[in-house]
Amino acid sequence: MTTTRVPQEQRTRAMRQRLLEATIECLVEHGWSGTSTTLVSQRAGVSRGAQLHHFPTKSDLVLAAVAHLSEVRGEELRAAAAGLPTGRRRTRAVLEMFADHFTSPVFSAALELWVAARTDPALHAAVLPLEQRVGRDAHRIAVAALGVDESRPGVRELVQGTLDLVRGLGLANTISDDTARRGRILAAWAQTLDAALEAA
Amino acid sequence: MTTTRVPQEQRTRAMRQRLLEATIECLVEHGWSGTSTTLVSQRAGVSRGAQLHHFPTKSDLVLAAVAHLSEVRGEELRAAAAGLPTGRRRTRAVLEMFADHFTSPVFSAALELWVAARTDPALHAAVLPLEQRVGRDAHRIAVAALGVDESRPGVRELVQGTLDLVRGLGLANTISDDTARRGRILAAWAQTLDAALEAA
Repeated sequence: MTTTRVPQEQRTRAMRQRLLEATIECLVEHGWSGTSTTLVSQRAGVSRGAQLHHFPTKSDLVLAAVAHLSEVRGEELRAAAAGLPTGRRRTRAVLEMFADHFTSPVFSAALELWVAARTDPALHAAVLPLEQRVGRDAHRIAVAALGVDESRPGVRELVQGTLDLVRGLGLANTISDDTARRGRILAAWAQTLDAALEAA
Repeated sequence: MTTTRVPQEQRTRAMRQRLLEATIECLVEHGWSGTSTTLVSQRAGVSRGAQLHHFPTKSDLVLAAVAHLSEVRGEELRAAAAGLPTGRRRTRAVLEMFADHFTSPVFSAALELWVAARTDPALHAAVLPLEQRVGRDAHRIAVAALGVDESRPGVRELVQGTLDLVRGLGLANTISDDTARRGRILAAWAQTLDAALEAA
């Protein structure tokens, strides 16, 4: 019995995974209002019946995708942080790592969910705690990557403000390619941040 | 003939205005996917027939509302800038003015349109040029309000980065009340910005 049950569980897990990834891809390409369970099952290559078995409604599917997306975002950031250079270009590299994160497809998917959650109470209840966790993770990664001491006055606010700045840059990139302007702002901010952290 | 035509034109203009304002209110309260022409005409107190006469489709209505919204946003910022205090609390007041703007209902409506425009080409074509105009206006207002000289190296990037920061703070406020954290970040940012502008 064990030998037949394990592959079945694996197949089930793989199918759920494909459905969640297809949901995120649909959010990126078609937005919240263009994402439907039909489109997701087609994209995942999963039959309509199997999809409905795992996730009976769009809401079930999206709430599971919210959790999956927050995992993916955390993993992407941790992996990027592990590859950061050391030395005097470090601050600029940290800013670029976060800017890359906030202009990536997973940010677009998260943005669709945030904005939909603003006016959808069930989605809001699911998005808020996970978003807070992603925010705390990002903050911790930033503190470690910059190698700063948060017990010194003003340091915490500088790190948080930096994350808000890159989030704002992410939003500015949503409807047009803002790469050139973003590069200039990050270069200037790296200098200002280094000076402010030194003074703090 | 003139005496009857003028009131008719005024009534038409007032009706269009009510429909556009109702569209923005619907976007704020129900989001992009929850905004329908039926809901807008009910809210505006305009008959379905009259609404369809002025704006045959949701797209017509929303494209006109995009232009109306960018007017409203520009007017709100210019009015707020005219009431700014002078003296050493000026920088903080400028930051708070922009933070108020990026956490206001008109920002929520604009955010709904930006995100929907990401995956809707017709909406994108309407939103992009108006958004660029609003961005240039906000930048000009910030430069004038801070009383800075953009010809000095680094000043332009500091002003732009500041606007990106408050935009990021606006997004952070979308799904939870971020007022307390935002206050701390703006207080720290005002000091950093003053020091950086002086050094520039």
